[in-house]
Amino acid sequence: MLLYHYPASPFCRKARLALSESGYEFSLRLEKTWLPNPDFLRINPAGEVPVLVTGDDKTIIGHQVICEYLVETLEEQSLIYGPPAQAAEIRRMVAWCDDKFVREVGRSILYERMIKRLKSSAVPPDSRAIKAGRTHLDTHLLYFSWLLERRQWLAATTSISLADMAAASHISLLDYLGEIKWDRHKELKLWYYRVKSRRSFAPLLTETIPGFEPAPTYGTLDF
Amino acid sequence: MLLYHYPASPFCRKARLALSESGYEFSLRLEKTWLPNPDFLRINPAGEVPVLVTGDDKTIIGHQVICEYLVETLEEQSLIYGPPAQAAEIRRMVAWCDDKFVREVGRSILYERMIKRLKSSAVPPDSRAIKAGRTHLDTHLLYFSWLLERRQWLAATTSISLADMAAASHISLLDYLGEIKWDRHKELKLWYYRVKSRRSFAPLLTETIPGFEPAPTYGTLDF
Repeated sequence: MLLYHYPASPFCRKARLALSESGYEFSLRLEKTWLPNPDFLRINPAGEVPVLVTGDDKTIIGHQVICEYLVETLEEQSLIYGPPAQAAEIRRMVAWCDDKFVREVGRSILYERMIKRLKSSAVPPDSRAIKAGRTHLDTHLLYFSWLLERRQWLAATTSISLADMAAASHISLLDYLGEIKWDRHKELKLWYYRVKSRRSFAPLLTETIPGFEPAPTYGTLDF
Repeated sequence: MLLYHYPASPFCRKARLALSESGYEFSLRLEKTWLPNPDFLRINPAGEVPVLVTGDDKTIIGHQVICEYLVETLEEQSLIYGPPAQAAEIRRMVAWCDDKFVREVGRSILYERMIKRLKSSAVPPDSRAIKAGRTHLDTHLLYFSWLLERRQWLAATTSISLADMAAASHISLLDYLGEIKWDRHKELKLWYYRVKSRRSFAPLLTETIPGFEPAPTYGTLDF
């Protein structure tokens, strides 16, 4: 399997975790989607990553589609599983992270601080947007912590699910930028420790994003 | 079944079409999500519609989650079906409509022209955003038309799928506002005629959105 990806994309991180937690080996191909690349546009006319090319040469486009494809094709489920109401709770938390969190936090902090510079945008980071994003971030992390005081994993499952992988993908990139005040979010920190300890997470913790130094405790379990 | 919804939300329209095409009867409850409502926030802490309350009193939150819930729980599939690669193509087109189309078109045209006024926003519509949205809209509709020259339905299925329902939800609200130049998109027009003719679509075509007169041909098959 081959995954077209970009390291600073939380959606690519989610797809990588989902593949790895499903037991797949895969290679990565870097795609800078903001640079015009007709070859890649022929693969995905939306011009976005992640894109998965499977062993039998099927092209599966987009993070949601890749994850649902894994759910459909794998016998043993570690992403979305259980009775329909539990699966719905997993998907609710995934959508919370991928939609609401991205809209209220990712698009301000991650976009303004990292993506703009990666794209060599001439527009400087919008400090008001970053400030607003930080306020939202705190609210989101308090909600996650509130849930994790009541549940071991984000979607009330007994083992890791796609909800945890989605949340960890978004949180890890903000943590890379030193945006997470771990002392303020104890329950979340315990949860993130467990996620960080997984084998699937190891490649993300040693990866660096060109032009950005990771926060000192980004890659370690002592944070 | 009960669906919390708002008529100007394309995601609610999608959920309604999905329920109806799956053979479900359901009642609707209007929820103006921009007005504070603690009762609704207890149901969905994200404060968003659609939310489905099932016959056995399960709360299913969010358009994606509702649709995947229907896919998981129904024997006979009319939303996402076929071999995994076909299901992936259906989901790719659904994500295209719900993510890319919304980001590039909905958030400019629909938001600026309709949602802002519904929310009694003090900020006037941004005419530059609307203009940019119209340019993007044309590109999206040309892509849909290009696909429909090669396929009977958007995701290359032999009958309607969730991809068509998603596209029609977004397009119908822009058509309500008179934004679609049907003469420029012949293949799409033939497809929309077929979608409009379905029983599931009828309730949408007679619905009016307070403060907005529908375009003259919005509700008719002669457009």
